[in-house]
Amino acid sequence: MKLRFLLISGLAAVLASGPSVAQSWEALPTVAPAPADNPTTQARVELGKMLYNDPRFSETGTISCASCHNLMEGGDDHRPTSIGVHGVKGGRNAPTVFNAAFLTAQFWDGRAPTLEAQAKGPIVNPVEMGMKDLTSAIDRIRAIPGYAPYFAAAFGPGDVINIDNAAKAIAAYERTQITPGSPYDRYVQGDKSALTAQQVSGMKAFAEAGCQACHSGAAFAGPALPMGTPFLQKFPTNVDSPYVAKYDLMADKGRFESTKNPADEHMWRVPQLRNLTYTAPYLHNGSVKTLQEMVRLMASVQLGKDLPPADVENIAAFLTSLTGEFPKEALPRLPPTPGDLLQ
Amino acid sequence: MKLRFLLISGLAAVLASGPSVAQSWEALPTVAPAPADNPTTQARVELGKMLYNDPRFSETGTISCASCHNLMEGGDDHRPTSIGVHGVKGGRNAPTVFNAAFLTAQFWDGRAPTLEAQAKGPIVNPVEMGMKDLTSAIDRIRAIPGYAPYFAAAFGPGDVINIDNAAKAIAAYERTQITPGSPYDRYVQGDKSALTAQQVSGMKAFAEAGCQACHSGAAFAGPALPMGTPFLQKFPTNVDSPYVAKYDLMADKGRFESTKNPADEHMWRVPQLRNLTYTAPYLHNGSVKTLQEMVRLMASVQLGKDLPPADVENIAAFLTSLTGEFPKEALPRLPPTPGDLLQ
Repeated sequence: MKLRFLLISGLAAVLASGPSVAQSWEALPTVAPAPADNPTTQARVELGKMLYNDPRFSETGTISCASCHNLMEGGDDHRPTSIGVHGVKGGRNAPTVFNAAFLTAQFWDGRAPTLEAQAKGPIVNPVEMGMKDLTSAIDRIRAIPGYAPYFAAAFGPGDVINIDNAAKAIAAYERTQITPGSPYDRYVQGDKSALTAQQVSGMKAFAEAGCQACHSGAAFAGPALPMGTPFLQKFPTNVDSPYVAKYDLMADKGRFESTKNPADEHMWRVPQLRNLTYTAPYLHNGSVKTLQEMVRLMASVQLGKDLPPADVENIAAFLTSLTGEFPKEALPRLPPTPGDLLQ
Repeated sequence: MKLRFLLISGLAAVLASGPSVAQSWEALPTVAPAPADNPTTQARVELGKMLYNDPRFSETGTISCASCHNLMEGGDDHRPTSIGVHGVKGGRNAPTVFNAAFLTAQFWDGRAPTLEAQAKGPIVNPVEMGMKDLTSAIDRIRAIPGYAPYFAAAFGPGDVINIDNAAKAIAAYERTQITPGSPYDRYVQGDKSALTAQQVSGMKAFAEAGCQACHSGAAFAGPALPMGTPFLQKFPTNVDSPYVAKYDLMADKGRFESTKNPADEHMWRVPQLRNLTYTAPYLHNGSVKTLQEMVRLMASVQLGKDLPPADVENIAAFLTSLTGEFPKEALPRLPPTPGDLLQ
């Protein structure tokens, strides 16, 4: 894996000449920003790649980060909602890991300010990886002797096998899981042949319909707020839309479910729109099966608009142009398991 | 991935000069044999690698071949017995996929004559991948449009997406999952510095104790019988051994459980001994946690011997020299999921 050690990459705003609505369109940077206390070093990425892919980090030894955020496909798990240890279903659709590094907060409700904070959540979630607590989780990793040299290389010297360092390594690895080079990116960087005529029409329709009010920025997940600050929006806003009942949009109260603050009812972090070709089904509850239906739903529920069918098709075609180049990397090798590790 | 297209590789018998007991010792071939009707072509291997790693081949979309035969570690799942769809535990320890291509039959009881036949078993096993039947399984794959060109390249032209071809592709891929180049292999090929003095002592003790009566051949899984013919042995033979009760060795009747033939009671295919460092815990029921205990158990239960502690340590040290070089390969990329594939 090639790594560049630029910590913060400037987001170059590009003024597209194609669509008639003058609008800022940003290409995805080729390096993700990293916090000052967790530079994306090769040793951290290497360790993080192992931990990310290691099912021994779960109670049963069967669920890794990659189980629900599968790097072999779209960085998610193809399911409406995920299935964790003991076959228990989770409540929300697994968001993709690809380009999560560009989001200013993590989880559907933005409750984790960083990738480092996010990484610790699923490990102890009883319907995800199901470890009793973070101490048990890191004890499990410590009991695999082969990890010691990798922690030492990434964080040494000293007693460095701890959950904070494990989370840092996973976050460092996730910062390499980005997908620049999509047709859209090449288009806004000047290659006017990168998009089809339909995709250019869709780009214009996307802007004119007002989608960019929320879906702005390089990841189409909102403006570059300070890292840790989620870009939240109310969803649904147009509660009279027929899609509200059709897709049960009032059932999950979004950020309120974790904060219990009435102001957070139905507030959600604006999700990114990259690689949607690979991340169906859509929505926090995984209930929407096609991109076209998702476009119709969002126009109706958030913008109060009943989009013409041609616009729906064109916007969906535009969105497929946001599928980028997935990292090419080696299958990881994990250190061997002591015979008494799992019961 | 580099592929050589030799279909059958001769097993060169090497007479080791180290141990005083003259005995035949074979290095692992660098190419696995393939049946005439399923040559190990690059296109089949590429498709097979995708299918092997694709969890969408299971009812819930969560369990792939790789879930229980993890290529990132020892080709197994680190657990005593596996956990499949819906969190249900299986009855036997997952055997490693590495070097399974050299075994003359598959599964602990040898009931599948080929890798092709084996591949179809777990897909429809309710405690493994849990598909209702093989028709549903291949329908699932057919519903992922991105697979069509890979099937065409491997088996085309025509209507080639069927379960037999899927199994052939998986088997072709598994034939590339071999681990030559272990210290043992280098030793028997003439590099007398490849083993430690203790490992050489262990090699001698292994031969003198009689382990090779069953654990002969390049994979230490028995003689080169015709492909499809399992090398079966009774286990336990010495039913008075204290290990029989300690590890509950009479509970599972081996091949009898699938054939119901009284002659098959407690008959088992002799397992291979390669990469044991990576495949703890041991035995068909995954109940033995260390290599030393496994050596003591086998000596007592199969050979009626109470091995001196030094021999146990030396044989265990020798067995660790059978850990070879795992294939270096790219993380696979899987085609995208239609939004209505999984419920």
